[in-house]
Amino acid sequence: MQDHRPIISSELATCEASRAEWMHEVRCDDCMQCSLDCKVARHDLESFTARVLVHHGASEKEASITARVLVSADLRGIPSHGVARLGRYVTGLAEGYIRPGVEPTVEEPAPAIGVIDAHDGIGQVVSDMAMDMAIEKAKHSGVGIVTVRNSNHYGIAGYYVLKAVEQRMIGMSMTNTAPLVVPTGGAIPVLGTNPIAFGAPASAHFPLLLDTATSVVPRGKLEVYDRNRLQMPVGWAVDEKGYDCQNPGHVLGNLLSMGGGGILPLGGRGEQFGGHKGYGLALMVDVLSGVLSGSAFGPDVNDLRKARPDGSRATPRVGHFFLALDVGRFMPVAEFENRMAELIEVITGSPRALDAERILIHGEKEFVRAEMHERHGIPIRTRVMEALRRIGKQARIDPPLTLAEKMAGQTPS
Amino acid sequence: MQDHRPIISSELATCEASRAEWMHEVRCDDCMQCSLDCKVARHDLESFTARVLVHHGASEKEASITARVLVSADLRGIPSHGVARLGRYVTGLAEGYIRPGVEPTVEEPAPAIGVIDAHDGIGQVVSDMAMDMAIEKAKHSGVGIVTVRNSNHYGIAGYYVLKAVEQRMIGMSMTNTAPLVVPTGGAIPVLGTNPIAFGAPASAHFPLLLDTATSVVPRGKLEVYDRNRLQMPVGWAVDEKGYDCQNPGHVLGNLLSMGGGGILPLGGRGEQFGGHKGYGLALMVDVLSGVLSGSAFGPDVNDLRKARPDGSRATPRVGHFFLALDVGRFMPVAEFENRMAELIEVITGSPRALDAERILIHGEKEFVRAEMHERHGIPIRTRVMEALRRIGKQARIDPPLTLAEKMAGQTPS
Repeated sequence: MQDHRPIISSELATCEASRAEWMHEVRCDDCMQCSLDCKVARHDLESFTARVLVHHGASEKEASITARVLVSADLRGIPSHGVARLGRYVTGLAEGYIRPGVEPTVEEPAPAIGVIDAHDGIGQVVSDMAMDMAIEKAKHSGVGIVTVRNSNHYGIAGYYVLKAVEQRMIGMSMTNTAPLVVPTGGAIPVLGTNPIAFGAPASAHFPLLLDTATSVVPRGKLEVYDRNRLQMPVGWAVDEKGYDCQNPGHVLGNLLSMGGGGILPLGGRGEQFGGHKGYGLALMVDVLSGVLSGSAFGPDVNDLRKARPDGSRATPRVGHFFLALDVGRFMPVAEFENRMAELIEVITGSPRALDAERILIHGEKEFVRAEMHERHGIPIRTRVMEALRRIGKQARIDPPLTLAEKMAGQTPS
Repeated sequence: MQDHRPIISSELATCEASRAEWMHEVRCDDCMQCSLDCKVARHDLESFTARVLVHHGASEKEASITARVLVSADLRGIPSHGVARLGRYVTGLAEGYIRPGVEPTVEEPAPAIGVIDAHDGIGQVVSDMAMDMAIEKAKHSGVGIVTVRNSNHYGIAGYYVLKAVEQRMIGMSMTNTAPLVVPTGGAIPVLGTNPIAFGAPASAHFPLLLDTATSVVPRGKLEVYDRNRLQMPVGWAVDEKGYDCQNPGHVLGNLLSMGGGGILPLGGRGEQFGGHKGYGLALMVDVLSGVLSGSAFGPDVNDLRKARPDGSRATPRVGHFFLALDVGRFMPVAEFENRMAELIEVITGSPRALDAERILIHGEKEFVRAEMHERHGIPIRTRVMEALRRIGKQARIDPPLTLAEKMAGQTPS
């Protein structure tokens, strides 16, 4: 089986500026037909992001890791988890619920197990370290499992999985998140969108890299529908009575005011389409990330309202779970990778639905985008660019030049 | 927090004989209002099942384990995976693709890892052994992962998880299955209903025990709709062109004739409701159960049509994945169990949708049923009872007496 690189599909090469969105599912800004106005070189974006973080108290090393994880989301076409969030990190650092410079406490209660307390440090920094630890443990014990408690938002779950995949291992990463999801039969959000990321290397095609929320849609999808004045389909969200709600503004307002209602688990409302299954998977993620790690769980995740018993201020107390599995213990790694390639070939090569252009494997679109963006610059939406300029101005750091500005020999605006 | 036992809901106590179904979601036959005609004591059902298996070549020990797993499904109210399948096991034993008496080959490439080849033995027997091994490994290494290749159908995935939970550990169990599920954008089944089971002990309520296919519905649901001449909702299945199909008979016919089309992943057709997420989770299960274990994967699982390269006959070559995680390495076990109880309380105690009687936790219905059935007998549908009598007659084994027959002092018919 030869290593092949799939041709970038016309879907990915089509610019649909009017449908540009903030989420995973979006298919815009990926092509060279798009304007170059807001394309930025990866290095410039990372360097700017890191300098901002250093200005707000992060060490050089912390800033470099965090910038890399954030920009990797933009690089892979997942802008919802990229530099568009930089403002929130700056706020967290300023308000003190993200604490730079803290040393995580690491325990190793068993050769295959690591238990980390992040002490409210930067989520990306402790998570990068936790997955490295899981990989080391897997090298020695065949498998490594590391939990993290008292952390913050860690960016895209898939980033850490990819670290394991690059070591030719299977990787998993999960995190609990702020409550947005209503359980089957419920009327208020008690679980997060709790993602599961899973990856495995393959000898051809790209690696498998699944990175999926256990909710039917992300909150960002509701925001896009709201901005575009679109009615949501039945099955995405419920109102404060727990009934189907097709008005995105109503649901978003409720989420902000904690008025009840929220996003539905994968499978929708009730059991007819398996909503109880998505709800169960969200629970599984919370048990592994929150309950087991010793972190907050359920509706307490990211709840900044109440102070702790000792009087100190509340912090997000997000929990993570990382697993690395050394496939070389099961069979020669090359054999495993060939079997993965075979599975991918048999699925993507199977007959397609009449209306489908291709059968995709998880991660493929993002790997294609990352290659394009590495070569041709990362597209940054105009208002994200404006936000970055504001953040830069406050910190007296030059914003990153767009490719168009670079080509024109301009100085930063 | 006190240990409490939930009151059996009116939903569970209502007999809806006309809606009796073959699957997980069914709510019939659970109450004392039902006729006693076809209720059988657990011990009688297990003993009959074991004797039939011994008659067909299984050892006493193999028969006892297999009977226990099968009857545990009936006990827990999941008749689709219980003694209704006994005929298929008899066929497998008779035709030689389920081989009794074989000794699985066990490798331990790392302290935390086990790799088992079942050599086409009985799925339940090797899986029971594999989870025991994972639990032992977790006692020593904190986590144990065991894969099984060249196995057969293993019954309910949750049975093995419960073994870990009884040891106050977290358990996981996955298996690949015969291809029934069409990937996003596809038109033929290339993946199984590939279940994920996950469990964790709790100090109050019941343990969490999630046992869920990654398809939107099981095949049995289509069969019930077909028998009752009901149109399926859009989002359960597709026809041979990959388009939505609401005719259950059409889809079932295609599955039998391998004419294309099949059941959709959790999330339905396309990406609007997250069908690509369910497809990704099914892939994850196949990678861990099939690719990693060295078993069949994708559409090759349970494919009995083609002979092997060496000329020997094809066998199902089902693959399984088991994980046990010792929560005692992360915190005192009692603390973990209290945290689990707290999570369960906060979710089940949260405001309900106006039309919902309760918010359930996964496993709860099945634990309630198991207690009832243990006390009052396991309900067996009439035609399953007839099938058991036929199987018994062929093997010259008395069928199990129903409770009504026992009360009347009758002899087996």
